[in-house]
Amino acid sequence: MDGIKVIKIGGNIVNNKSLLISFLKVFSSLEGAKILVHGGGKKASEVLSAMGIKPVMIDGRRITDTSTLDVVTMVYGGLINKNIVAMLQSEGVNAIGLSGADGNIILSHKRIPTNIDYGYAGDIDKVNVHTLTALIEADLVPVLCPLTHDGRGQILNTNADTIASEVASSLAAVAEVQLIYCFELKGVMHDIEDETSLIRNLHNHDVRVLHNSGIIKDGMIPKLKNGFDAKRKGVKKVSICHFSEMTDEDAGTTLVL
Amino acid sequence: MDGIKVIKIGGNIVNNKSLLISFLKVFSSLEGAKILVHGGGKKASEVLSAMGIKPVMIDGRRITDTSTLDVVTMVYGGLINKNIVAMLQSEGVNAIGLSGADGNIILSHKRIPTNIDYGYAGDIDKVNVHTLTALIEADLVPVLCPLTHDGRGQILNTNADTIASEVASSLAAVAEVQLIYCFELKGVMHDIEDETSLIRNLHNHDVRVLHNSGIIKDGMIPKLKNGFDAKRKGVKKVSICHFSEMTDEDAGTTLVL
Repeated sequence: MDGIKVIKIGGNIVNNKSLLISFLKVFSSLEGAKILVHGGGKKASEVLSAMGIKPVMIDGRRITDTSTLDVVTMVYGGLINKNIVAMLQSEGVNAIGLSGADGNIILSHKRIPTNIDYGYAGDIDKVNVHTLTALIEADLVPVLCPLTHDGRGQILNTNADTIASEVASSLAAVAEVQLIYCFELKGVMHDIEDETSLIRNLHNHDVRVLHNSGIIKDGMIPKLKNGFDAKRKGVKKVSICHFSEMTDEDAGTTLVL
Repeated sequence: MDGIKVIKIGGNIVNNKSLLISFLKVFSSLEGAKILVHGGGKKASEVLSAMGIKPVMIDGRRITDTSTLDVVTMVYGGLINKNIVAMLQSEGVNAIGLSGADGNIILSHKRIPTNIDYGYAGDIDKVNVHTLTALIEADLVPVLCPLTHDGRGQILNTNADTIASEVASSLAAVAEVQLIYCFELKGVMHDIEDETSLIRNLHNHDVRVLHNSGIIKDGMIPKLKNGFDAKRKGVKKVSICHFSEMTDEDAGTTLVL
């Protein structure tokens, strides 16, 4: 198999219909084999709130209890995933929406509680490369939502950045893989207000200093961890860029080991 | 391709977790290529109600407005479909959950309003046999939810009995197809209270008399129409039976043209 591009979009794009449509048009124009991984966005919280279910958060992280699991299964696997697939089909992309349970694509286990019990949160054990590549070879474009399963009938809520990293790393055994984290900024910047401060090549050994000085923070910290993990496991190129620039090989921030 | 079995389960099985698990165990034991089509059940109404959205019904039929479409997309495509897939995976069946948008499997158009405007309800135009058979040949077991798409980005709510009939009919061009409507009764009976009154062979020319005498009524009327349509379009065998008996070739009511 030739090259495969794994593209991840986060909640801020999923939340905003006009951004999402713009993104999907760019994604549709990408040549070659590709996989889209989408995050969850705010919709799950809106549905929980509309249903009168109070979100359970510890240290700013969502705890997935039974009701929350049902809602994220509905919203991520149903509403968001199927609408993205239908929009891609209208752009001529033969998309196929998948959770990790579909085709046994991603096996995980329920996160073992330490000081926090995250509930029905899944940590990935295995990506089924055989089935994913069979779908790609049938000219389908997998669209993965942030749900996996434990092989014993249990759906598990799973971080989309991690899914993108693990899928890219696993495919690296059979193809040249490029992993692109798309969001609404130019990349990692010294000053978020100044686009000229974009860090074009981010070296792993510089991450700690940038973290300590507050330049890298919040959701960017696990995203970079996932990105460098993928690099270490053989993914050819990992970058973080604005979604409108993903077809430009030189755009955004490229991770360097 | 050898024979393919298309199995449809209705809302009463989907609504009841222990019935659903029993059904899925029997389905898992079915030999050979197979497709599961599931209905929606009561869960969409429960979620609509929990979200404070009033169901819109005309003449006992649900009208799919925008909010209702979002909820059925969540519930049918997400909650029900992904949980069935995860349960089948735990039984060793390599299930893959699909709406009609996924892989462009089922194209439809928004039903043209006559005296009633059904909203986002889809009438099927085309089943993509090529992609369905490619998935089956990759040893996957498609699990179809009652959603289709119009190819222009619009998801449409679509009757599951009709999906089962159209999928079976389309596959009849490339394989010997058997269509089984599974429910919680023995089949079509003269007297619903008396299992010995089961009609083993139901001839098309007898349907009108049975309808006029009230023996065939409600949801059975469109189910039989869909079943006879499939027979006319080349499906080898169409039957209606109790879900626990679907592995028994002689069970239930067989439709005869």
